Formats: sequence, C-alpha cells, structure tokens
Amino acid sequence: MANLDTIVALATATGSGAIAVIRLSGPQAIPIVKGVFKGKDLAKQASHTVHFGTIRNGTEILDEVLVSLFVAPHSYTREDVVEISAHNSRYIIERILELLIQRGARAARPGEFTLRAFLNGQMDLSQAEAVADLIASTSAASHLVAMQQMRGGFSTVLKQLREQLIQFASLVELELDFSEEDVEFANRSQLEALIVEINRVIHKLIGSFEQGNVLKNGVPVVIAGRPNVGKSTLLNTLLNEERAIVSDIAGTTRDTIEDEVNIHGVTFRFIDTAGIRDTRDVIEAKGVERTREKMRKARLIVYLADPQQDDLDEIKSQLAEVAQLGVPYVTVVNKVDLLTRDHVDTLNAINPLFISAKNNTGVEELKEELLRKVNLHKLDAGDVLVTNVRHVEALRRTEEALQGVLLGIKGSVTSDFLAMDIRQALHHLGEITGSVSTDDLLDNIFSKFCIGK
Amino acid sequence: MANLDTIVALATATGSGAIAVIRLSGPQAIPIVKGVFKGKDLAKQASHTVHFGTIRNGTEILDEVLVSLFVAPHSYTREDVVEISAHNSRYIIERILELLIQRGARAARPGEFTLRAFLNGQMDLSQAEAVADLIASTSAASHLVAMQQMRGGFSTVLKQLREQLIQFASLVELELDFSEEDVEFANRSQLEALIVEINRVIHKLIGSFEQGNVLKNGVPVVIAGRPNVGKSTLLNTLLNEERAIVSDIAGTTRDTIEDEVNIHGVTFRFIDTAGIRDTRDVIEAKGVERTREKMRKARLIVYLADPQQDDLDEIKSQLAEVAQLGVPYVTVVNKVDLLTRDHVDTLNAINPLFISAKNNTGVEELKEELLRKVNLHKLDAGDVLVTNVRHVEALRRTEEALQGVLLGIKGSVTSDFLAMDIRQALHHLGEITGSVSTDDLLDNIFSKFCIGK
Repeated sequence: MANLDTIVALATATGSGAIAVIRLSGPQAIPIVKGVFKGKDLAKQASHTVHFGTIRNGTEILDEVLVSLFVAPHSYTREDVVEISAHNSRYIIERILELLIQRGARAARPGEFTLRAFLNGQMDLSQAEAVADLIASTSAASHLVAMQQMRGGFSTVLKQLREQLIQFASLVELELDFSEEDVEFANRSQLEALIVEINRVIHKLIGSFEQGNVLKNGVPVVIAGRPNVGKSTLLNTLLNEERAIVSDIAGTTRDTIEDEVNIHGVTFRFIDTAGIRDTRDVIEAKGVERTREKMRKARLIVYLADPQQDDLDEIKSQLAEVAQLGVPYVTVVNKVDLLTRDHVDTLNAINPLFISAKNNTGVEELKEELLRKVNLHKLDAGDVLVTNVRHVEALRRTEEALQGVLLGIKGSVTSDFLAMDIRQALHHLGEITGSVSTDDLLDNIFSKFCIGK
Repeated sequence: MANLDTIVALATATGSGAIAVIRLSGPQAIPIVKGVFKGKDLAKQASHTVHFGTIRNGTEILDEVLVSLFVAPHSYTREDVVEISAHNSRYIIERILELLIQRGARAARPGEFTLRAFLNGQMDLSQAEAVADLIASTSAASHLVAMQQMRGGFSTVLKQLREQLIQFASLVELELDFSEEDVEFANRSQLEALIVEINRVIHKLIGSFEQGNVLKNGVPVVIAGRPNVGKSTLLNTLLNEERAIVSDIAGTTRDTIEDEVNIHGVTFRFIDTAGIRDTRDVIEAKGVERTREKMRKARLIVYLADPQQDDLDEIKSQLAEVAQLGVPYVTVVNKVDLLTRDHVDTLNAINPLFISAKNNTGVEELKEELLRKVNLHKLDAGDVLVTNVRHVEALRRTEEALQGVLLGIKGSVTSDFLAMDIRQALHHLGEITGSVSTDDLLDNIFSKFCIGK
C-alpha cells in the first residue's frame, strides 16, 4: 500500500530535556528537509548517516541540528525517514514543525508511523500492538512479554499454520467447482490432523492469556482480614520497599499507583479492603458484600489474621469463608513478635506464614509465596504469552470455527459447509496478525498510540 | 583538558513520547555500548553513522534500538559520543542506563555534556550559556538573541580585541624587566587607540543589555488607571489573542504565565494593578504605594482612562503623576464606543490612543505603540545583544579597568601600574568567553542546565 503523503511529528516527550527529535516519513521526507536544511545535500547522502547543519526559514536560523537519514526500505516504516535532532525548546519545535508542514508534510496522527510500518509489511499487527505495550511496560515481566510479541512471538507460528490451512481451504473450494463429481482434493484425515495441531497451539495460547494478562496489567491481590489485623501496615511494608521503580514512572499508569508493588519483576496490584466481619447492620453488610465481590474478582487473596484478636476457631471459620470463594489464598498470621511458642504451635494447625508487618519479619517469604501462588515465578525468555484481549478473543473464535470444521469432517458434511467454516477460522486467525483487517480495527488500535510513534 | 571518564544521561524529556535518546560521551563511550549492543561491530563503524540492533543484558533483550556514532573530535563534546535511540518506556530507559553504568559509564551531572564541549574548545563560555538560553526560549526575540549568541555573537569580536590587548600587555610587562632603562616597547598612542576601540565596542554592548534583557525575560508593562476603567478587560483582550504560543509551553516558565503576551515575537509581561486613586485610608494608601513601586520598576506603563468616569482635568492630573515616575508611558482612552465626537475632540488634548478593550477596537494600534515605545521593533538578525547579567557585569568591570589604563597613559604612570590595570581588564574580558574561569563559576553556570545537555 503506497502512502503518497509525508507525515511529520515530534517523536520525543515534551517537557524539560536537552534534545527533541522530529520525525518525518514518506516519499517527500528527504526533499522537504533538504529544502530547509543548510549543510550537506541530503539527497546525495547514504542511508543511516547523520549530518550537522542548520534548519532555516529563509535567512532566519531556527536551530542547529543533526539530521539522520533512513532511505526506504531500510527504515522503521519502510519509507524514506528523516529524523531531526534539535534543541528541546518548545518554541523551536513548533517553528520547525510549522515550517515542515508549510513545505508539504502533514502532521501525523497517533501511531501513524507504526501503522505505516504495518501497512508496508515491516511488522504484523500483533507486533505493532506490542510496540505500544513495550512503551507502556513498567515491570520486567510486562517488558518481557511485550518484547517477545514485538519480536515475532506467536505470530510466526500462527502464520505458518494459517498458510497450511489456506492450502486446504483452496483445495476444499476447488471441490466446489466439481461438486457434481463428488471428488475430494483435500485429504480429510490430513486436514483433521492439521486442525488438531492448530487447536493444540491455539489452546495453549488461550491458556497463556491469564498469565499474560496479569503480567501486563498486574496481579490483583486482595488483602483481607478483620479490621485492625494490620492490613494497611502490611501494604505499607510491601510498598516502602519495592514501589520506587513504579512510582518514578510518570504518565505510564492511568490510575493511582498507590497500591502497586513490583515483586521480582512482576507487578502486584494490592487492594486493601474494609475488613470482613459478621454484621447484622444492613449498610455495613453492603460494605462487606463489596469486599467479597473484590475478593471474588482477585487473582489471589492474602488472608491476614491477628491471633491477639481472634482465637483459632474464629480464624478457621473466616478461612472457611475465604475458601468458599474459590480464589487461591495465602494464610498469614501477623504480629508474630507478640506470640508465645505455644500460640505458634496451636496456629500451625492452619499452616500459616508467620509475619510481623511492622518489623518486616517474614515479608520476603510472603512475597516468594505470592509469586509461587500466581505461578509466575518460572517465566523465562522462551515463553510465549498472549496478553491482548483482542488476540485471545480472535483465538477463541478461531477455535470455535475449527470445532465446526472438525465436526463437519466427522459428519461428512458437503464441501461448501466445510469451506465456510474453514474460511471463518482463517478470518479470525488473520485478524490477530492483521492479514485480515478493517479500517475500523486499525483506527481503533493505532489511535491509542502516542503521536510520533 | 582530558576527561578520562565517560558520562551517560537521558537526553530527551521524560513523559509520554515515542522515542527516548540516551547519550554517552567520553573515551569509553563506544566500547561500553559495543559491549551491550548486538548488531554491527560499533568499533569498526564510521563517524556519523546509525546502526540498528538490540541492547542486551546477557541474553535478555532490553530493547531494539538505533545507535548513532560520533567519533572524536567530530561531536558535540569533541569526545567520542554515542546516542542510543530507544523506545520511550521509563522501564527500558532505567534498565539501559543501569546497564551502561554497570559497564563503566557515570551518570552525567546537569550541563556536563556542554561543559565538556566548552572545556574541549568546541565553544566558548558565552556560547555554552546560550545553549541553555536557546532551550528556554519561548518567543521569536528570545530565540533570536540566544541563537546569535550561540553562533558566536559578540564573543568573536571580544576575543579579537582581547588578543590585541594581550599583545600590548606583554609588551608593557616586558618594560618591567627593563624598568631601570626607562624604555617603552608598547606604543602608548597605539595602546590608547586600541583601548578607545575596545571601550567603544564594550559601551555599545553594555547599552544593548537593556534591550537584550527584556527580549530574553520579557518587557514588564504595568497597566495602570483608576478602578473599573477596564484594565482587566484590556489584559484579557491582549491575552486571548496572543497567549497561545506562550501557554502551550510546559516547564519553560518558572512562575505564572498568566500575564505573558507575545506581541510580534516579543514577550510582554503585563502586570495588572489595583488601580490608582487618592485616598486618606492608611491601608489603602499602602496598596497604592505598592502599585507606584511596580510602576517605577516597569519598562513601560499603559495608563488607561475612562472618560465616562473622569473628566479631562482629572485624567490630566493622573497623567502628571504617572509622568513623575520617569518611566515611558502610553496614554490610552478606553470605551471609545461610548464617546461622542465632542468628547473625542476634547480628549485629543492629551493625544491618547482610543480603544475599546471590550470590542477589540484599536488594540492592534496599541500593540504597535508598545513595540515602538520599547524600541524593539527594529530587531533583525544582524543585531548583537547582551542578554546575560554575568556578561554585562564583566563588561562593566572591564570598562572600569580600561578607564584606569587610559588615565594611566595620560598621567604617564609607570609600566607596573599600567600592566596591573591591563591585566585586570583582560581578566574581566576573559570571564565572558571563559578564557578565564574558575570551577565555582563553571559549577554555577552549568548546574542550571538540564541533565543530558
């Protein structure tokens, strides 16, 4: 797909900083910059070279700059790309952008450089989406899954399987032309084997979503327990140690990050609750119901008990309530420093982790346990995870359509019904990598990018 | 001066944006990046080339990046410089910086790249200071004067004159070795002519400071007049039209920009006042005195009158008060739309500008008048202005010392006294361009820069 216009945008963040980079892409990128650049003749320079000079509006010098050239197809967008590294003054940036637009460039829309990279075949759609995920990544885990996806991830495998399925589809469709002769060009048992293989891969990918999603968006953990057992103290202890990495990051988190903790590269979103207790008060009961709702939606519950306050039976009865929710939980006994040896022995009946949130005793062990419970501790560079809701939905729809194909083969349906189901599966599979895409879909994806990317 | 260590910093702003640039400078810049870069062998690449590859910490891929090489002395700092263009994720930036520091780079202090450029003779001190001014520039005028200064400005002239003075100084000092022989190696009338020439240049530069300073920091204008004559309406009319260019700029203005207006490229800082009126109330009198104080310090006063409220005599008496302050002022009659022809004729006695702030009548003429009054309308690319308090102070001290030399020549003082005064003048002249500098001075200048510049 040829883009006849040339786009321009500031590619770096605005605010205090030494340099700013203005990026152009398109057939006129080099001529446009050449027209305002005093230095070497940019049209005669090699790709991947940098040139010092001035940007001028007539005789007025707007800035001394470095200009980098990337000649098509050896650029991010596979078009001619020029990057102008200027002094980071908003005044200068505005003037240069204005000048380049006067000279024929068009202000780029959000994500338009990456959209062009996709349209020009530089990357598939899932890779393009991973670029945005990479920029938004705030932890080792979210960074790792975005990087894997950007560098190919599952899309290579999916593309191969899709190619094979397309071959079968064309054979099956060929049968339609000979429908009166009752021939079978597509070997049904080979087709079945392929679909079983695709389903295996897809099933594994769908299964990875839960983990991929929490790695990308953080693991929601509810800290539950009766009032005053030390929930907030525990939260603070967890936050004080680890949240620096998260809290330094401006503009990457949409909501509050008060409760986010980075534990060994995984982001946990701790949700403090009002505390569970039996009540006959209607309004308070509503609060407790809300807490239960949060607990049900959590990936993990930390149940915190204070044996100074409740005896073993009471703790056991609360644990039974927690267990009912069907969410994995960790039993933690707080204020261990105030417990006698006997007390500890009694409490061992519920096999808890003993901590002192206040004195930071046992908190490291709790973190290890949290990682174990969410089963994320074994993540390594080889794992391929689906992190994107759009992808998992397309995978589920593919799986459904393939199920139809399998049933069709077994039920010996006619080629036309089979072809329809295969085409449906191909369509959904293609949506992931963008082999199939609509303008609406692309708009929806790229409008969430930042301008200049 | 050789810097043996290699510095590293993020050179772009933090926040939302597509790319970020990490910059290294120093003898180990290329080896350090080569050690973490998978791609071409950076040690074997030419200066001013860009290379695609990945930054890796062991087997972990931190990012796909573009690396630009600038081989000494062909770089900003005249040292080896490497720029890494990465995805703008704070997580990635932090990890890459951490990795480079582990590999032997040191986190750069504010302005340290430009400090090195100065120390390595890439630019003189006044040019280095202009880099910061350029980044902070928010109007065409402040941009122009910073650009002139960065590209040489007055420092070329000053350096030449200083060289000539140094020659005389050495001749005069030579005389000291032959003091018993009463010889004169330094031709006194030539020396006198040189000093007159230097003084002429310096005098002109000192004279340019007032204009340079207001161009850089904005022209302070007090809008004065009795309560309810329409001062705030005028301010709003001025702001609504022109302030967009200023208000878009985040982080460049330290205080409020509520009252800054960009008029034809010059920033005016409008200061609204409580209104002048005669009063016998002690507290109110204090407020009026504060208004008068602001008026005295202004570069210009816009005196706004409302003839619906005051008759000509009253207006005249207020104008007399304004005139007393010795600050240039513009007489403006507001609410012209409510005036009769007769009224206008009467008011012509004080030769005012007639406007309607509310209807935006005559406001353009007022702006032209403001530009005329501050005598800034003729600024063009050839003008050289001093904008820096440090420079003007050094120039004044130079002038003083040269005055001493002139008196010495006329009074035929001995060579040793003459030599002392010349050396004093050379010292102050050298402070401007940094031929003479102390660590304290450099610290003071560069600590105000941003990190990464």
